[in-house]
Amino acid sequence: MLFMLSAICVSAQQNLVQYVKPIIGTEKMGHTYPGAAVPFGAVQLSPETETISYEINGKYNGKVYDYCAGYRYEDKTITGFSHTHFSGTGHSDLGDFLIMPTQGKLQLNPGTADDPKSGYRSAFSHKNEVAEAGYYKVKLDDDNITAELTTTTRVGMHQYTFPKSDQSHIILDLMAGIYNYKGKDVWTYVRVVNDTLVTGYRQQTGWARTRTVYFAMSFSKPFKSYGQKNYDAKQAYHGFWGKFDQTKNFPEIAGRDLKMYFDFTTAEQEKIKIKFALSPVSQANALTNLRTEINGWDFEKVKEQAQASWNKELKRIQVNTSEDNKINFYTAMYHAFINPTTYMDLNGQYKGLDQDVHTADGFTNYTSFSLWDTYRALHPFFNIIQPTRNNDMVKSMLAHYDQSSLHMLPIWSHYANDNWCMSGYHSVSVIADAIVKGTFTGDANKALDACVATATHRNYDGIGYYMDMGYIPAEKSGVSVSNTLEYAYDDWAIAQLAKKLNRMDVYATFIKRSNNWKNNFDKVSGFMRPKLADGSFKKGFDPLATSGQGFIEGNSWNYSFFAPQDPAGLVQMMGGKKKFASRLDTLFTMHLPDSFFAETEDITREGIIGGYVHGNEPAHHVAYFYNWTDQPYKTQAEVRHILNMQYKPTADGLGGNDDCGQMSAWYMFSSLGFYPVAPGSDEYSLGSPSVNSASLHLENGKTFSVEAINQSDKNVYVKKVTINGKEIKDHILKHADIVNGGKLVFYMSSKPKK
Amino acid sequence: MLFMLSAICVSAQQNLVQYVKPIIGTEKMGHTYPGAAVPFGAVQLSPETETISYEINGKYNGKVYDYCAGYRYEDKTITGFSHTHFSGTGHSDLGDFLIMPTQGKLQLNPGTADDPKSGYRSAFSHKNEVAEAGYYKVKLDDDNITAELTTTTRVGMHQYTFPKSDQSHIILDLMAGIYNYKGKDVWTYVRVVNDTLVTGYRQQTGWARTRTVYFAMSFSKPFKSYGQKNYDAKQAYHGFWGKFDQTKNFPEIAGRDLKMYFDFTTAEQEKIKIKFALSPVSQANALTNLRTEINGWDFEKVKEQAQASWNKELKRIQVNTSEDNKINFYTAMYHAFINPTTYMDLNGQYKGLDQDVHTADGFTNYTSFSLWDTYRALHPFFNIIQPTRNNDMVKSMLAHYDQSSLHMLPIWSHYANDNWCMSGYHSVSVIADAIVKGTFTGDANKALDACVATATHRNYDGIGYYMDMGYIPAEKSGVSVSNTLEYAYDDWAIAQLAKKLNRMDVYATFIKRSNNWKNNFDKVSGFMRPKLADGSFKKGFDPLATSGQGFIEGNSWNYSFFAPQDPAGLVQMMGGKKKFASRLDTLFTMHLPDSFFAETEDITREGIIGGYVHGNEPAHHVAYFYNWTDQPYKTQAEVRHILNMQYKPTADGLGGNDDCGQMSAWYMFSSLGFYPVAPGSDEYSLGSPSVNSASLHLENGKTFSVEAINQSDKNVYVKKVTINGKEIKDHILKHADIVNGGKLVFYMSSKPKK
Repeated sequence: MLFMLSAICVSAQQNLVQYVKPIIGTEKMGHTYPGAAVPFGAVQLSPETETISYEINGKYNGKVYDYCAGYRYEDKTITGFSHTHFSGTGHSDLGDFLIMPTQGKLQLNPGTADDPKSGYRSAFSHKNEVAEAGYYKVKLDDDNITAELTTTTRVGMHQYTFPKSDQSHIILDLMAGIYNYKGKDVWTYVRVVNDTLVTGYRQQTGWARTRTVYFAMSFSKPFKSYGQKNYDAKQAYHGFWGKFDQTKNFPEIAGRDLKMYFDFTTAEQEKIKIKFALSPVSQANALTNLRTEINGWDFEKVKEQAQASWNKELKRIQVNTSEDNKINFYTAMYHAFINPTTYMDLNGQYKGLDQDVHTADGFTNYTSFSLWDTYRALHPFFNIIQPTRNNDMVKSMLAHYDQSSLHMLPIWSHYANDNWCMSGYHSVSVIADAIVKGTFTGDANKALDACVATATHRNYDGIGYYMDMGYIPAEKSGVSVSNTLEYAYDDWAIAQLAKKLNRMDVYATFIKRSNNWKNNFDKVSGFMRPKLADGSFKKGFDPLATSGQGFIEGNSWNYSFFAPQDPAGLVQMMGGKKKFASRLDTLFTMHLPDSFFAETEDITREGIIGGYVHGNEPAHHVAYFYNWTDQPYKTQAEVRHILNMQYKPTADGLGGNDDCGQMSAWYMFSSLGFYPVAPGSDEYSLGSPSVNSASLHLENGKTFSVEAINQSDKNVYVKKVTINGKEIKDHILKHADIVNGGKLVFYMSSKPKK
Repeated sequence: MLFMLSAICVSAQQNLVQYVKPIIGTEKMGHTYPGAAVPFGAVQLSPETETISYEINGKYNGKVYDYCAGYRYEDKTITGFSHTHFSGTGHSDLGDFLIMPTQGKLQLNPGTADDPKSGYRSAFSHKNEVAEAGYYKVKLDDDNITAELTTTTRVGMHQYTFPKSDQSHIILDLMAGIYNYKGKDVWTYVRVVNDTLVTGYRQQTGWARTRTVYFAMSFSKPFKSYGQKNYDAKQAYHGFWGKFDQTKNFPEIAGRDLKMYFDFTTAEQEKIKIKFALSPVSQANALTNLRTEINGWDFEKVKEQAQASWNKELKRIQVNTSEDNKINFYTAMYHAFINPTTYMDLNGQYKGLDQDVHTADGFTNYTSFSLWDTYRALHPFFNIIQPTRNNDMVKSMLAHYDQSSLHMLPIWSHYANDNWCMSGYHSVSVIADAIVKGTFTGDANKALDACVATATHRNYDGIGYYMDMGYIPAEKSGVSVSNTLEYAYDDWAIAQLAKKLNRMDVYATFIKRSNNWKNNFDKVSGFMRPKLADGSFKKGFDPLATSGQGFIEGNSWNYSFFAPQDPAGLVQMMGGKKKFASRLDTLFTMHLPDSFFAETEDITREGIIGGYVHGNEPAHHVAYFYNWTDQPYKTQAEVRHILNMQYKPTADGLGGNDDCGQMSAWYMFSSLGFYPVAPGSDEYSLGSPSVNSASLHLENGKTFSVEAINQSDKNVYVKKVTINGKEIKDHILKHADIVNGGKLVFYMSSKPKK
């Protein structure tokens, strides 16, 4: 599947790839990575800078959290280049098939950062590093090897430029990984087919309980010898295996813990190239992927194709804004277009949640659904600008449901597993949003049935209590409040879908459930509070604390605003518009105690504004809530404030985990001037655009345009806004006006419209 | 794939199943099992009587050897019924998916034989046991449950008759196994699809390094609850799995070490039936196998079909002989028709040696090739009576070769692995024999190429030395002599194949190599002896010892006769016909020292005649060697002697491991009066038939018949023998005379023809 755009064609077009800086977010809390990827590709080929075990002596090692993306800008050494990464997550996995080029004495362990020469790792410096969309380059100082990476959807391509030596090596570390720990490896199998081709697979447990990735690895030059080391001391039962010396030049390799190496003699500046294909299904499929996606050994051509594929996606939106904001915008778009990833071979086969092989019938199967994050803005963003892919993502979720013996839609799924991370059952939101907005082409009634089955799975995370009592008793769950609030929103999304399908019995049930957020609202304190089984609120309430209060990744200050499905009801509950606005003011200006930062895992002081935590998701809609008060100008100011504070075109530019593109989707929506406060509705809430203008080229051939007249850093307030010339007075943009190719015009001002 | 023969049709025919006594060989050294199988079936559903670990504290536990087949007649308890077994092997594996019905308090460990009530195992007695071809029944005394087993090719069927209880259980032990040890389990995955259907797989290492068996399990009655226990204490990294109670009624189960149970309420004498299908490929294939091979829940019908399928195979040969000998003969035929086993789903898919899924194109794929044993007589037997299957077996071996990154034919292969057990590369013998005899329908030249590649694999087991020096130096291998001798025979087989294909360059190379046996012959001692690299014979030679002398499973006394490809040359080497016959006399009459039994693993005093060890294979042709002297009447006497001594219709009736049917094939050949001394030739050496007459109904529609005129226990000598009325004077029967439907007549006498 070679990309259609030729290099000539690309260069004649606008080069938007120039604005993508994959390095953004690689420092501090962004958890992005700088390596090579193509849009929604199965391969994300990126450097690792440390080897951190998830456990030390059986206990959780907090330091592993920093390495969710494998690479930290702060580090000084690179341990190698591996083929799979999550972008921006706060928990992690993957880091499959680490490759490292070395010279001299063979070293199979990475060594330490303090003494990189103690192992195969190498020192590097950012001045010798280039990170672009689809391309990464770095000089490995230890052995003076230049590493370059690019990729197609399923095949990573490496190009290593070696100094002269008869002891050049390529290490294939089949034990390395992200969030690794002793015992994570289940089984590894490798076949050395000939002196340029190796295939195999690696099976691991961990965040995904049963995860197998198959590979095919092709070298541009025959290796002169190869070998393996088996690190499983217990692999005692060899039978007659001893007939072979299996450590050297033995082509049928299998075991729990393996590392391999390949030896070369290299001339000065000789390039050794590697094509490394992945498959979720088989070595044969990996080999077909390899041979089909990359023909020959032209690294530059593959790089050009990768960048052309990015340009093709990026030009779906053209923005007129400052150069820095173009970098922010297109890098956000880049980060939004990485996950979910293609999880399907060229022949349509993929491994299902049931661990059997399936063939995707008429859709591309995707995986890595970080739904607690991405239901908020990323999938709504896809509904506008990537509707075909979003449709396929919904179909992927429904296939997951079909394969689930739990009869549940995905919660947080990757590589044929659900890790059930975080709260809620937010795939229902993504599905409802896609159907309400007309993106979904499948059987909507079946989709609704899947949503209902998931939302009524009594054994899952307090749902039984929630169904029986309207809330989850604090005795029964450490995250009783956030679960109840998120379920209530999800139920509202199901109700919207049911209404759309005229399934009014389902609507009635779920619209009733969607009010359950009120059950955790304490009218006395004015906060969402954990409630006991006897109906009384739990004592010892602290709205600033994130731990022990019934919330996950957020405190009551943030979660008390979590009723995106009913802002008006929430305003009323909190005492009317004025009191509500005042509560919002406090949120955005309050001072958080140090204890908050100590106990909240992925938050830095940079990631917050007052008590508003942008670095975590639960309050992502809150800045738009002023629209439900008499002070919508504060939405305009806060949105612009957040855009400026939380997104910068630097390695440390992201105020929190990008979370598979959710933070980036928030950026794009907000900089365009609107945001989906409640996915599942067809409405967006208006804010304050930071762009001067933008054109969204939709798949239906229409163009939706945004113009911000009199736009500047000071003119953040909206005097007037029109859609197709007609003034919008309720701060609501309709989805139909976008997809019909409307023109949204903001008239900006330095003065708030009070 | 339902069998064509209806029950009515079977009963109208000769019932040969009545002569099959699967219990034969289950005591002492036979290593057979009494459970249910169909001919060459993928499922061999049989009771286990003990749980023995291969290792105790990291050291080999010799007791495990006794339990190669899982069941020992000597034992008093049954631990359960598992679905895969090797028949008659001396090393082992398998024992997959152990099922045990129990009542009362749930017990997930088997407990001890001394106190069966300490676990799920149960006492039983042989008086309550029925073992037939395709059917097994036993009463489990502990809980008074009657267990019955039958099977199709890929689906085992269980029928358990319970007493009344609200605490009836079916245990599915996913850690039990044969030649088990801590760490053998790699990964197990189970889906509870609904309350009557469970699917999953279990991956293990061990004798087969990477072995995965998929299953689908269907219950005749819904279980009321179910649960699992995960025995892997290190499976620490659960992420958000704790949202579920995974121990009870949780349908997505995965881990390293798992056991499951299913709970029922049973009425008095209520039958719970289970269909348990296997697949080498996927749960989906297992389910298709299950639903296609057994329709409904009629246990009796499945049993009748299983027995009809046996009858259909058994009636390929009809023998006229004593009732005891009919039992011996048809049980031998039964044992010969178990291995190799079908390793392919109904849709033709199987897992290849390369661990990818393949589809068998125009053949049935088989596995479990115990070739060091079976090349001798079993595959030659198949060439006569199962040529279609033998053709498919050769094609299976060639598919193995195609998938081998070592580019080797199977040595001892099972379940998509080679365990490289024993010496030689005897698949070349099986291939040469099939091609020379016209059984093989594939590309013979490609087959020869595979043989040559295997025989010239310099890194394998001394082949490099063998090729360079004509023998393997004793310094380089503990089995230097037996390897050299077996390679030389195999090379002769390759030469025969090359000659047949007119590939005279290959012929020249390998006919030369086939003389290498002479390099280990010490003319001074008259024995095969280990030779050092410098060309001198190793000191400290003891022709009686089996250990430290360069032999495997045999001493020099036995191995010195190992030149089946050149008996005349061996006669000459040993000093002429008279001296040679005298050496044979000594072999059959000598007294072995106790030390021999102490150091030779699978030999009992019952398994030997003088120094001739029938219980091991290397001398299986030796009784026929008198035909190359002036005393062929001694072949006749010794063959009859062995037939009488080594094969009895009792549980302890086999004098050694049946070895996947090799011992049984020896029995059938010899009782019919001829034997393939050198597979790869088209000749058989004549002995002394023990049958009165026999008809072999060949697949080409012809019938080869044997008649022994004046046959009796005393009349063991052959006065005259004719083929189609023409006297045979050279003791040679030609293969063509068999397949053309000839008539072989022996004229028996009580007096040797000297």
